[in-house]
Amino acid sequence: MIVYERPVRFEEVDAARIVFFGRYLYYAHEAMEHFFAGLEGGYPRLITERGVGLPAVDVRSEFSAPLRYGDRLRIETTTAKLGNRSAVLRYRMRAEASGQVCATVLHTVVATDLAAMRSIDMPSDVRAIFEAHLE
Amino acid sequence: MIVYERPVRFEEVDAARIVFFGRYLYYAHEAMEHFFAGLEGGYPRLITERGVGLPAVDVRSEFSAPLRYGDRLRIETTTAKLGNRSAVLRYRMRAEASGQVCATVLHTVVATDLAAMRSIDMPSDVRAIFEAHLE
Amino acid sequence: MIVYERPVRFEEVDAARIVFFGRYLYYAHEAMEHFFAGLEGGYPRLITERGVGLPAVDVRSEFSAPLRYGDRLRIETTTAKLGNRSAVLRYRMRAEASGQVCATVLHTVVATDLAAMRSIDMPSDVRAIFEAHLE
Amino acid sequence: MIVYERPVRFEEVDAARIVFFGRYLYYAHEAMEHFFAGLEGGYPRLITERGVGLPAVDVRSEFSAPLRYGDRLRIETTTAKLGNRSAVLRYRMRAEASGQVCATVLHTVVATDLAAMRSIDMPSDVRAIFEAHLE
Repeated sequence: MIVYERPVRFEEVDAARIVFFGRYLYYAHEAMEHFFAGLEGGYPRLITERGVGLPAVDVRSEFSAPLRYGDRLRIETTTAKLGNRSAVLRYRMRAEASGQVCATVLHTVVATDLAAMRSIDMPSDVRAIFEAHLE
Repeated sequence: MIVYERPVRFEEVDAARIVFFGRYLYYAHEAMEHFFAGLEGGYPRLITERGVGLPAVDVRSEFSAPLRYGDRLRIETTTAKLGNRSAVLRYRMRAEASGQVCATVLHTVVATDLAAMRSIDMPSDVRAIFEAHLE
Repeated sequence: MIVYERPVRFEEVDAARIVFFGRYLYYAHEAMEHFFAGLEGGYPRLITERGVGLPAVDVRSEFSAPLRYGDRLRIETTTAKLGNRSAVLRYRMRAEASGQVCATVLHTVVATDLAAMRSIDMPSDVRAIFEAHLE
Repeated sequence: MIVYERPVRFEEVDAARIVFFGRYLYYAHEAMEHFFAGLEGGYPRLITERGVGLPAVDVRSEFSAPLRYGDRLRIETTTAKLGNRSAVLRYRMRAEASGQVCATVLHTVVATDLAAMRSIDMPSDVRAIFEAHLE
């Protein structure tokens, strides 16, 4: 499990005064970039130099409690499943102060050659990080 | 079925040069606001004057093809399911030029008193719009 | 003058319940894309096929009244100044219902070869649109 | 001077592959929230409990070099000017690796009673932070 924390920002709430539901996928991606911080050059080098990415093919989100401006978010990221070319990341998002789970996101990604937009075997350094955090 | 169209904007792509996966939920919400255009005062009045909203409790997205800058998006919105307090919206998102489905989003919402953050029976005018577009 | 209209969206307000000040530059860019709709293939083809863009070098914004969820925005775009390689766009942003000016943005852009990130002479079709809407 | 650092995120670039110009105002606001971290309860409590905010009335941005995905941003925030009800924040934004200034933003804010949307004298704890970082 890799933990990532960040505040809810001023502009991340909507007209109902709670964090906009689409915003949680941005939080998930931030947590994923942090999850891969151990790659040489991090996730940015994977994308921009190696031309490999992890586009989403399926995302399931459950929302159980709202987040508001002033809350601090704690995201626990694990690997729920690992295949040859795909993996499922699970993000458990909590309000840090109370520990309450606000959202859970299951994010299925496929290792992809970004130029050809074709799936490839998971690069071994990427796979190693998924493996290290298998549930 | 209600159809909503809009271009992919300059800043909606990511470093992999395709529309960011979280962005599709913003598209879904835009399509939902359009779906409810027939309410008196539209979705804004529901939120800001009547204090009623439709927060998401569950969202499932499947991504089948990327969208890029310059594409035009066509979103077909229907009611997949309708209960007393909740409903499931289905958004079929196509690249307008080819007609290809790029993403499908199933969006479960609950009628909510926003001040109390408690579920309520679906207001009748909101229910009528859901009913008119049941699959 | 080219006019562009769009609603304020649900997620565009901030925790102070007014449109976030940074959001106005997104509105400005939307209006600019609309301003250049007459180019063959529009602004997208300029960027993605011709490799030419109009990055900002200077932006000045004055905010005179807040916008809220439910407002509709009317943006009047003109060319305030035109040089060989640069131009200044002026966006007058009004609340459509009242006509009140909420923000004015002066946006200086430079014609740029995006691969080399070097300024170039303004392409003639781009220049023609700037000229047609000189104040 | 208060320093705030953060990476450029995956979805913050645009179709020209550089950080979108409007995004810099979001960076500025993040740096401002950090600037006011010393307030009791931070900037969130000022907004949500005290009902006081600092809406922008004027923002001037100069862009001197692009930022890209993978860059890390360093923002140096100072008080350029301080009045009874208003202040000017200066953000010097650098690419952390090279130290090069990419953007400079001058952000004029007015202390505001958010319910009445009327200017007020700067609260003394807010003023103290502005004073501590006057250029």
